[in-house]
Amino acid sequence: MCKLSKHNYLIIILIFVQITLFSCTNNSSIQPQEGTDSSHPKLVLTQKGVQTIRKNLGNIPLFDETLAIVKEEIDAEIIAGIQVPIPKDLSGGYTHEQHKKNFLMMQKAGVLYQILDDDTYAEYVKNMLFEYAEMYPKLPVHPQTRSYARGKLFWQCLNDSNWLVYSSQAYDCIYNYLSEEERTVLESDLFRPFADFISKGNPQFFNRVHNHSTWGNVAVGMIALVMDDDSLLQKALYGLKTDNLQKGMKDNDGGFIQTEGQKVGFFANLDEPFSPDGYYTEGPYYQRYAMYPFLIFAEALHNNRPDLNIFQYKDSVLLKGVDALINLSDADGEFFTLNDAQKGMSYYSKSLVSSVDIAYHFGGNNPELLSIAEKQHKVTLDDAGFAVALGIKEGKAKPFDKKSIELSDGANGDEGAVGILRSGPMELVYKYSAHGLSHGHFDKLSYSLFDDGEEVVQDYGLARYVNIEQKGGGNYLKENKTWAKQTIAHNTIVQNENSHFQGKYEIGSKHHSEKYLFSVDDKNLKVASAKEENAYPGTQLHRTMVTIKDEDYPNPYVLDIMKVTSNKTNQYDLPFYYLGQIMQTSFDYTKLDTPQIFGKSNGYQHLFKEAQVVSNGKNLKLNWLLNNKFYSYSSVTSKNDEIILARIGANDPAYNLRSEPALILRKKDTKDFVFASIIESHGTYSPVSEFAVNAYSNINNISVVSDSKAYTAIQIETNNNKTRVFVISNINNDPEKEHQATINSQEITWKGAYTLIEK
Amino acid sequence: MCKLSKHNYLIIILIFVQITLFSCTNNSSIQPQEGTDSSHPKLVLTQKGVQTIRKNLGNIPLFDETLAIVKEEIDAEIIAGIQVPIPKDLSGGYTHEQHKKNFLMMQKAGVLYQILDDDTYAEYVKNMLFEYAEMYPKLPVHPQTRSYARGKLFWQCLNDSNWLVYSSQAYDCIYNYLSEEERTVLESDLFRPFADFISKGNPQFFNRVHNHSTWGNVAVGMIALVMDDDSLLQKALYGLKTDNLQKGMKDNDGGFIQTEGQKVGFFANLDEPFSPDGYYTEGPYYQRYAMYPFLIFAEALHNNRPDLNIFQYKDSVLLKGVDALINLSDADGEFFTLNDAQKGMSYYSKSLVSSVDIAYHFGGNNPELLSIAEKQHKVTLDDAGFAVALGIKEGKAKPFDKKSIELSDGANGDEGAVGILRSGPMELVYKYSAHGLSHGHFDKLSYSLFDDGEEVVQDYGLARYVNIEQKGGGNYLKENKTWAKQTIAHNTIVQNENSHFQGKYEIGSKHHSEKYLFSVDDKNLKVASAKEENAYPGTQLHRTMVTIKDEDYPNPYVLDIMKVTSNKTNQYDLPFYYLGQIMQTSFDYTKLDTPQIFGKSNGYQHLFKEAQVVSNGKNLKLNWLLNNKFYSYSSVTSKNDEIILARIGANDPAYNLRSEPALILRKKDTKDFVFASIIESHGTYSPVSEFAVNAYSNINNISVVSDSKAYTAIQIETNNNKTRVFVISNINNDPEKEHQATINSQEITWKGAYTLIEK
Repeated sequence: MCKLSKHNYLIIILIFVQITLFSCTNNSSIQPQEGTDSSHPKLVLTQKGVQTIRKNLGNIPLFDETLAIVKEEIDAEIIAGIQVPIPKDLSGGYTHEQHKKNFLMMQKAGVLYQILDDDTYAEYVKNMLFEYAEMYPKLPVHPQTRSYARGKLFWQCLNDSNWLVYSSQAYDCIYNYLSEEERTVLESDLFRPFADFISKGNPQFFNRVHNHSTWGNVAVGMIALVMDDDSLLQKALYGLKTDNLQKGMKDNDGGFIQTEGQKVGFFANLDEPFSPDGYYTEGPYYQRYAMYPFLIFAEALHNNRPDLNIFQYKDSVLLKGVDALINLSDADGEFFTLNDAQKGMSYYSKSLVSSVDIAYHFGGNNPELLSIAEKQHKVTLDDAGFAVALGIKEGKAKPFDKKSIELSDGANGDEGAVGILRSGPMELVYKYSAHGLSHGHFDKLSYSLFDDGEEVVQDYGLARYVNIEQKGGGNYLKENKTWAKQTIAHNTIVQNENSHFQGKYEIGSKHHSEKYLFSVDDKNLKVASAKEENAYPGTQLHRTMVTIKDEDYPNPYVLDIMKVTSNKTNQYDLPFYYLGQIMQTSFDYTKLDTPQIFGKSNGYQHLFKEAQVVSNGKNLKLNWLLNNKFYSYSSVTSKNDEIILARIGANDPAYNLRSEPALILRKKDTKDFVFASIIESHGTYSPVSEFAVNAYSNINNISVVSDSKAYTAIQIETNNNKTRVFVISNINNDPEKEHQATINSQEITWKGAYTLIEK
Repeated sequence: MCKLSKHNYLIIILIFVQITLFSCTNNSSIQPQEGTDSSHPKLVLTQKGVQTIRKNLGNIPLFDETLAIVKEEIDAEIIAGIQVPIPKDLSGGYTHEQHKKNFLMMQKAGVLYQILDDDTYAEYVKNMLFEYAEMYPKLPVHPQTRSYARGKLFWQCLNDSNWLVYSSQAYDCIYNYLSEEERTVLESDLFRPFADFISKGNPQFFNRVHNHSTWGNVAVGMIALVMDDDSLLQKALYGLKTDNLQKGMKDNDGGFIQTEGQKVGFFANLDEPFSPDGYYTEGPYYQRYAMYPFLIFAEALHNNRPDLNIFQYKDSVLLKGVDALINLSDADGEFFTLNDAQKGMSYYSKSLVSSVDIAYHFGGNNPELLSIAEKQHKVTLDDAGFAVALGIKEGKAKPFDKKSIELSDGANGDEGAVGILRSGPMELVYKYSAHGLSHGHFDKLSYSLFDDGEEVVQDYGLARYVNIEQKGGGNYLKENKTWAKQTIAHNTIVQNENSHFQGKYEIGSKHHSEKYLFSVDDKNLKVASAKEENAYPGTQLHRTMVTIKDEDYPNPYVLDIMKVTSNKTNQYDLPFYYLGQIMQTSFDYTKLDTPQIFGKSNGYQHLFKEAQVVSNGKNLKLNWLLNNKFYSYSSVTSKNDEIILARIGANDPAYNLRSEPALILRKKDTKDFVFASIIESHGTYSPVSEFAVNAYSNINNISVVSDSKAYTAIQIETNNNKTRVFVISNINNDPEKEHQATINSQEITWKGAYTLIEK
């Protein structure tokens, strides 16, 4: 116990008063929290982190390698000199690409200054920032008028926000290098007006829930933290208090700016689009894009506002988001194409490098993340990247075990899901989610299939060549709306040649599919099942997708059961977007002399009909070759069904679409029907040995042996003399429920919603 | 000095008499040569080799690895049991594939018996051979009637010959394991009738110059060596003395069986199709196929008939052939598609493993071959493979330096050539050869272009899916003749919609193009030039292809000058088979509502016209994307030329053709014209970073600034403000000749057939 003298008491009281006074006079500044340090850098790099990194330079291989590459890049840029052109071009064009390059270079140079303690880099950042500070006050809005929220440096505020997210970090790194006067110039001529322009100046951009506004919020939040401006930080976290936005306003993609009672700001963007499983409703392509601002800002908040417990927010949704993203990638790390998504985007992207590093460092050092970082073979040059490189050096990495996983959609996880069935080399991506905001496609209960990282049955993705200026400035092409978003562009049911929800975002965004079953405990039998009742009012769609591993065959096959029930007769089309070259079909098609346009609207105008045949009622079988593998599609048909061989590319005046094939099974004048199909990857070909191995399907027959309101049963006969029947309850998904049914005159009993019996 | 007693003299005389008697009574047997050993194995493996291999087992990594893999394969086959089905199927079908597998397994099992000294393997070979000996005498000709020379085990004698080439080796390996009685049964019931059937029984197959007969000759020769049957060996080496073949007979591919005064047999097959440079006139795809019998038999002859000096024959043409083949492969080791050729065939094929090993062992231990063997990562399990594995172990491998090379065609090297220009990552394959026997295409002066191992401007190859039974039994499809062989399917001039030589083999096979220039000493300027005067009588084609490396650009660009001169007006089409997706064109095309069939015959019936435009007389420019690289094609046009965007696939009732694009420049009513174009690989795209780098062409303009009988001059303006003029003499290719010409009012002088001047 210690005793205080009166004198001591007085001192303590005086200190207290002083602190209180300081608080009152600086009520717009951010309070340094216990254990943090208000001096710079403090945003992403920290003073403590920099000390540790400097001490270990040369000893942590992956960190050192990344550092050497970045240093080489920036040294070359410094020699090349600074270019800050007057903004003019769309993405892909010179000024766009130059400003984009500039912010990336500044961020890296800032980091180099801190790590290498070499003023050259600080000077480079400073000079570039001053060129921007010189130009910015005079800039009008960007001359390109395509965006609903035009920026100043770029054609859209989105890219301006990108700029600020990165340059905030650069500014933080050289903060102490600058004089107070210099900081004043930069903040008053550049950063504050910049932050104001993308927030107050563009509420339709800033005050919404969308990946755009995430970037906007974070940009403002990051510079607020650097400048110690709490009022600006509040805007970032909770949005503008007033925005005077008209209800029903839409962006360029047709997405609503706001909905009724919309919350806005960073937290709203975290609450709403993320499900409790970490799935981001726009899909992995945009999640990947959004992860960077989400996580870099989370890191900055963690460092400066630990009171917000940001990484624990919503049951650690940001950390879950990183896991979700990795699980949403194929064997090569490329993201599944859900909604608007460009193929080839992968966890090798910059934003995933930082996401993985941050999730490792702030999320409990999961060693599986280290194996992803090993593949990425680079780390962020900061505390998180250092921790990862150290973990790898210490041999802690473990393989990332990608799971069969159901990722719920919706803020509360109750708006459907994406189910991924993994079995052997096959990855089935089944979508029964919500719409996905303005980037959503009208493809309820659609799927795509991957074999060892190669897409075999495809989701078309977006109609856009991102940042390729030749193609509409690198922006969304009109075919994205007329083709890519339409239902017929996907592997799901189209009723009467209309898209789901009439192709209207206003309707589609109000609905979601319903999860029914997701059961993956048996490695030889995995089931995902879901229902959709709103896409076509009066029509119920219930699709069940199953992977079945037969010990006699190397790969599992996929059973697809699409049960359609309607209150009226309709025409149903079920497209099948296989990729590859037809080897053989079971049906005798006749090719048209010249391809004909398949339909008038809703995407049908973009398909050519190349061949057609009327079914004889037997199974249709399509055998094709892709990347030296043999695949087969076997499907139940009825007599007089139409089978159409089609190709994408009609009404495509600028070759914006890819010329790729499809098979469409068309049923006319039908109320209820069960589309039952099997997809197999059964064989291989080598152009070197010229051996064809298992070139033919193993499926002798597939048939619907029973279908009622209560049960659907599909019989599968394989060429190893096995006959199996898959039975599913259509109305009770309780895993404990005992069922009894007569299938093919045979009475069977089982527990749970489905069973696979061998006859 | 030693003295012989009378007694000794007598003994020597007696021995001499005995030898002479032996020689007389066995005059059909092969004489063991000095330094060889007549005991088995002696064909490919030798007793001495086996001893060395056994001694070193476990010490030569690549040999041991290959051995382990082969052992695992054969052990599994032995467990699976022997299947020798009654022949029934075409290639791709069960019986075909089983018999094919059997001969491969027998050969390997024989080798294992020798190396591992384990009777299990000898017993396996013996049992299988006896099953064949049991079945063979009862076999009729194969039930499939498609071939001009039906086999017994297979639908064509070709495959029967394959069988015998391999099973001879197996027989040789277990020769000493068998009793004399067993050997008698096998020889009298199987090997002799087998050899007779594919020779005397099928002279139309055996007595010709073709890869088929090479296999036939070698099969007979191999078994002759094992059985020590010189009379059979003579047939193999020099053909049947009488064959009663009618003149003008053709095979299934339309090739002549024989021509006037045709020599036949193994030596004739070595003399005629191989040029002195080792180029095989059918092209690398068939050369690869033929190399195995050529080289394996050469090895066997070397071991048993060293007097023939087979590896030195025709200035070591067989060894040169291996070098030629490797030079005829792209950066990934895949062979360029010349004539009938399936894409993807590469130096990883079995026959190239043995070719490389044999060429190394018997051809002076070229260390560059070791680097190819390292990539192949397997060796033959014999003396040659052992030598290679040892060389690799000893670190002797050196990179194989693929060259810009001109490989002459024709037995005497005077029937044109194939010229390969290599510059940076670009490989240009320019064909100005002879027809290529029955596998030749009608594509004089055609070319294809590769970028880092990826085909960018394609040669279509064959219309066939080799050994894929679903596609016409895996055999040539009718589209091979109606499309793949036709001129319009290639990147060369078509006059009046007719193929070269009227598409007639009878005419085409009599002619060849003429070499004009091949100059590759300057790494920044490489030139290949050739002329064709017979494809269209009265019309002269002179094409010059140039790679130009400008220091300002990372990749060289390709200049293509096709000078056409005729004695009448014609329509000329120059197709350009780019692979990839159109990004942008300089011309405003209008797509047809639906594709239209482009023409009636000569391959035109297989093209769809998708779009067309009439040229404004400026350069046409096509900018496209393939595998995330940007390419451009810039071409001189005249006002009113037609530019057609086309796609392969019309009149293709069974989806036998690949749906791939083309651009066709069409000139009507023209006598003389210079088609001048530039192909660039100028930029890259990353779907991960989404950066597009150098997406646009660097060529501002290309123009023909001068054209006369004597000289043609092409001016190239690039976006680095350089203007260059390439001038070529059209009539004098002497590298020492001094030229003087006025180009664009400027007088220039230079030495040699061409020059590139910078203005």
